[in-house]
Amino acid sequence: MGAGLIGASIGMALTAAGATVHLIDRIRSHAIVAAGLGAGDVVEADPDDVGLVIVAVPPNLASKVVRAAMGRYRRAAVTDVASVKKRVLDEVQAQVKDASRYIGSHPMSGSHHSGPLTAVGDLFVDRPWVITDRPDNPAWVVDKIVTLATLCGARIIHLEAAEHDEAVAQVSHVPQIMSTLTAAHLREVPRAHLQLAGPGIRDVTRIAGSDPEMWRQIIHANAPAVRHELEGIRDDLEELLAHLDDPDAVEGTLAQGRAGAQSLPGKHGGHAQSWQQVVVEIPDEPGALARLFADIGKAGVNVEDLEIEHDLAREVGYLAVSVAPEREQGLRDAMTASGWTLRP
Amino acid sequence: MGAGLIGASIGMALTAAGATVHLIDRIRSHAIVAAGLGAGDVVEADPDDVGLVIVAVPPNLASKVVRAAMGRYRRAAVTDVASVKKRVLDEVQAQVKDASRYIGSHPMSGSHHSGPLTAVGDLFVDRPWVITDRPDNPAWVVDKIVTLATLCGARIIHLEAAEHDEAVAQVSHVPQIMSTLTAAHLREVPRAHLQLAGPGIRDVTRIAGSDPEMWRQIIHANAPAVRHELEGIRDDLEELLAHLDDPDAVEGTLAQGRAGAQSLPGKHGGHAQSWQQVVVEIPDEPGALARLFADIGKAGVNVEDLEIEHDLAREVGYLAVSVAPEREQGLRDAMTASGWTLRP
Repeated sequence: MGAGLIGASIGMALTAAGATVHLIDRIRSHAIVAAGLGAGDVVEADPDDVGLVIVAVPPNLASKVVRAAMGRYRRAAVTDVASVKKRVLDEVQAQVKDASRYIGSHPMSGSHHSGPLTAVGDLFVDRPWVITDRPDNPAWVVDKIVTLATLCGARIIHLEAAEHDEAVAQVSHVPQIMSTLTAAHLREVPRAHLQLAGPGIRDVTRIAGSDPEMWRQIIHANAPAVRHELEGIRDDLEELLAHLDDPDAVEGTLAQGRAGAQSLPGKHGGHAQSWQQVVVEIPDEPGALARLFADIGKAGVNVEDLEIEHDLAREVGYLAVSVAPEREQGLRDAMTASGWTLRP
Repeated sequence: MGAGLIGASIGMALTAAGATVHLIDRIRSHAIVAAGLGAGDVVEADPDDVGLVIVAVPPNLASKVVRAAMGRYRRAAVTDVASVKKRVLDEVQAQVKDASRYIGSHPMSGSHHSGPLTAVGDLFVDRPWVITDRPDNPAWVVDKIVTLATLCGARIIHLEAAEHDEAVAQVSHVPQIMSTLTAAHLREVPRAHLQLAGPGIRDVTRIAGSDPEMWRQIIHANAPAVRHELEGIRDDLEELLAHLDDPDAVEGTLAQGRAGAQSLPGKHGGHAQSWQQVVVEIPDEPGALARLFADIGKAGVNVEDLEIEHDLAREVGYLAVSVAPEREQGLRDAMTASGWTLRP
């Protein structure tokens, strides 16, 4: 129910996995477009044949549509995909006698597009998908939602609804607001100055281009958690302003920022991979580095990172080559065989 | 002088353009590495043969090295690449009797890497390069710097030093601080919550991973302009916190953020391109959209944007296809020939 970007993308993933998907949207052409893209069909299903209802509507409509779905599809597990979970849960539990067939979930696609035209079947591959299952949910209901996320290729994370909301305030809603505040400030910047904008400010302000109406709903639904986090940032900003003339204090803040940025898990959600370094001395002669790169290339080892180190006392340079641990010895052997001096 | 990322990248661009480039670095292995990458040579030049000196050292050393360069290379135009310009100019003018051979410039590469290993000859292609030439600069000096930026493929922007500093506070330094504050806050976020991080927060916090030591110098050198802009953002944040429970006020801020993000000039610095829309009716039948896409593809027209529109009264959908103005008629003809109904 709801054939926008999220609903249509889920439909495409499930259809590709062999499931039968029926699409419903308040705006019928949305459902038709989604069906045309391979997200399912627009056939009216027998309610008793439906095993799972996915409510993919704007957050302020989620609990209402979940309630309607639970009334109509009596044998189905029901989930929604709203990005704030506690309020939807409270509203469903307040209005439905037995809410045990309902589990809120949150597939975190991160796209700032909307509408079915931008839907893709791999929107959720390797992305987090939060499932807020509760002790009152029967195992078969949990299984349905877990299967849904699995078929979409997502990484499943189980959290309570309230904890989910705190987490998304921290890693999603507050960054959205920071991006918005940075971008809003640009309205007062002369056009000539905007010509100097580089990739940095584009990165910072990219999500500020998101749909204000959608984010209005998200922030409203999660206002208490957002306020708490935002007050912390306001305090940090005041502190920085008070010490802006002290380079040590500014560098301290910058270093905290770098540490925070580095605390984000790796691209696929794992811990940062640890590489082994092979450190090669760079002779003080023209073309040495080009020859060194050629020899590393010939060794057939995938280089993960490169760094130059210095021995200031000896005025000599070293190239630190980072490789997967199982490749270290092979690279050492190849380098030595080619005549390079390694630091032990 | 200075063979880090910026210096070595400039050397690579100039060498590729046929210039003779001599590299000097306090850390000799930096210069050797840069030379090995094709940025020039490490030969000691006759000072009187040098026509242009490019000082590419950390900002807090810039004026000192510029002064030394002007003393040693008596016939050369001298520029520096520090990202704050007024302070360097003031220091040079205070310490050099005739500073007319010096023009500060600022190639805006936007890379958050450092060191010669990450240098590339096209680092500045299509990027802004600010030249802060003054009435006291002879034409031949201005020409040298303009040629430098041109050979690097950059877009030249002439600004006074003080105006440059205000502009970079707005479009670079304040976004850096906002990214830093957002990222620093993550240090207090539980590890389980960080698993929910998506591309949005990664975009916002990417530049927070930059070198704190470098940014300490930049912000220190531009503290007054940064403070002024940052106080404006602090006020906006306070205002938002005061109205966080009012969805209309929140949406207003979000809409301002979107407008600000959209005010950034297009990727290549031009105005946003204006496209022509061809609006095609989508029949209410399965496979219609796939057929429509196939026919658009057959028309051989480059589609710039797609949007679905609705006629709520008639429950019918339209696909708005944006194309370059000179392609509009061709697409209209092709669509009509394939039997599609166009909105006039």
